[in-house]
Amino acid sequence: MRNIRLIISYEGTNYSGWQRQKENQKRTIQGTIEEALKKLLQEKIKLIGSGRTDSGVHAISQVANFKTETKLSLQVIKKGLNAILPKDIRIKNVKEVPERFNSRYAACSKTYQYLISSSPSPFLRHYTYFSAAQLDLSAMRKASKFLIGKYDFFSFQAAGSRIKDSVRCIKKLSIRKKRIGLIGDLVIIETEADGFLYKMVRNIVGTLLEVGHGKKVPQDIKKILYKKNRKIAGPTAPAKGLYLKRVKY
Amino acid sequence: MRNIRLIISYEGTNYSGWQRQKENQKRTIQGTIEEALKKLLQEKIKLIGSGRTDSGVHAISQVANFKTETKLSLQVIKKGLNAILPKDIRIKNVKEVPERFNSRYAACSKTYQYLISSSPSPFLRHYTYFSAAQLDLSAMRKASKFLIGKYDFFSFQAAGSRIKDSVRCIKKLSIRKKRIGLIGDLVIIETEADGFLYKMVRNIVGTLLEVGHGKKVPQDIKKILYKKNRKIAGPTAPAKGLYLKRVKY
Repeated sequence: MRNIRLIISYEGTNYSGWQRQKENQKRTIQGTIEEALKKLLQEKIKLIGSGRTDSGVHAISQVANFKTETKLSLQVIKKGLNAILPKDIRIKNVKEVPERFNSRYAACSKTYQYLISSSPSPFLRHYTYFSAAQLDLSAMRKASKFLIGKYDFFSFQAAGSRIKDSVRCIKKLSIRKKRIGLIGDLVIIETEADGFLYKMVRNIVGTLLEVGHGKKVPQDIKKILYKKNRKIAGPTAPAKGLYLKRVKY
Repeated sequence: MRNIRLIISYEGTNYSGWQRQKENQKRTIQGTIEEALKKLLQEKIKLIGSGRTDSGVHAISQVANFKTETKLSLQVIKKGLNAILPKDIRIKNVKEVPERFNSRYAACSKTYQYLISSSPSPFLRHYTYFSAAQLDLSAMRKASKFLIGKYDFFSFQAAGSRIKDSVRCIKKLSIRKKRIGLIGDLVIIETEADGFLYKMVRNIVGTLLEVGHGKKVPQDIKKILYKKNRKIAGPTAPAKGLYLKRVKY
């Protein structure tokens, strides 16, 4: 058996997230790629992703792998998949990896990026969260400092999550402003952690936005972490601004 | 009567171009904005655009004006329109102008931009033309020099055009490469002229791409202009890479 690793870029707008759904009720990224693989390789393929992305969330470099008996070359697999797949999913790289490699369990860290636009451009409507109000980036940066490190992020996971261990280690959480030609200012929040809880990035962004809008002060972050209560953190930021940027192994 | 000028940004992907069609057979930008104006102002409005854009072509700053009896403030018109319009059309500016101002006849020059991407990003599929082959930018720049100035651009207008005077003056035609983060290299062709013939920008881009791919040499441009024959110029570049960037008055 060969073990093949894919690096995948996709726009999540028209999909119900990464994970295949039972009885194919809804269109998902995993389901769509598995179907394309079945067509190309004439085998039933189980694709293992580094993790799920939610409905509407994008990926710049998602990683996934699958086992196969095929003798097709990597180049032919890449070209064949890109020919079959819709244009909002692109295979960037195809590589043969050791048989024990598992995209999900071998992941050491993930990096997500969140884009916030300051003007309601028609070209960014699926790709950024638009916030007309001025953001206090300095306050947001102060707040972000309290989140870097190893903490119990219980307050930042989706309400009702039943995961046992909500301790994670955030290695990086940066906030920068970038002026992009005619598009205007983008605020880019980037974060790297050993792993993220369900909706954790979007809940962190929603909370930082409340700090940016003056509804919370940076010091409130300490209390939110300590209280372990989803209700006192900010709202979940919209999916369309979120990108899975990189998975490290 | 008041004369109101709009500056409009739109993504052309889901529209059959700017111009309203008889009996509203197809969705157009002009038709959609006129309907929104009718709803907002309770008047039948005729919108005059600076010019048409083709099906799939985008605008960063299209200009249009209309006459109205409304007493609504400019701020209310802007907010009202943006609330009614779909998100792929945004009104960037609303201004009252002298009664004699006509967006079409008063235009002195127009600037178009054409974007070519070197990687098949899912995020750019509606916004750039993707060309995998390496482009010889130096040859393209040499070729572009032959197009700057006042010439008969007959060879570059759509086949079958019946316009009498195909002389236009190109003031600017630049080709630059821009590296945009994770997106990769974009080649940006920008051109300004007193006016453009039907499909002229896309035909110029298609011809410059042939030069970039080595199918034509820069000197061929002189012959193409001289021969006044659409067939010897290059093909029409796809609409999705083209943006109306600015209209000067």
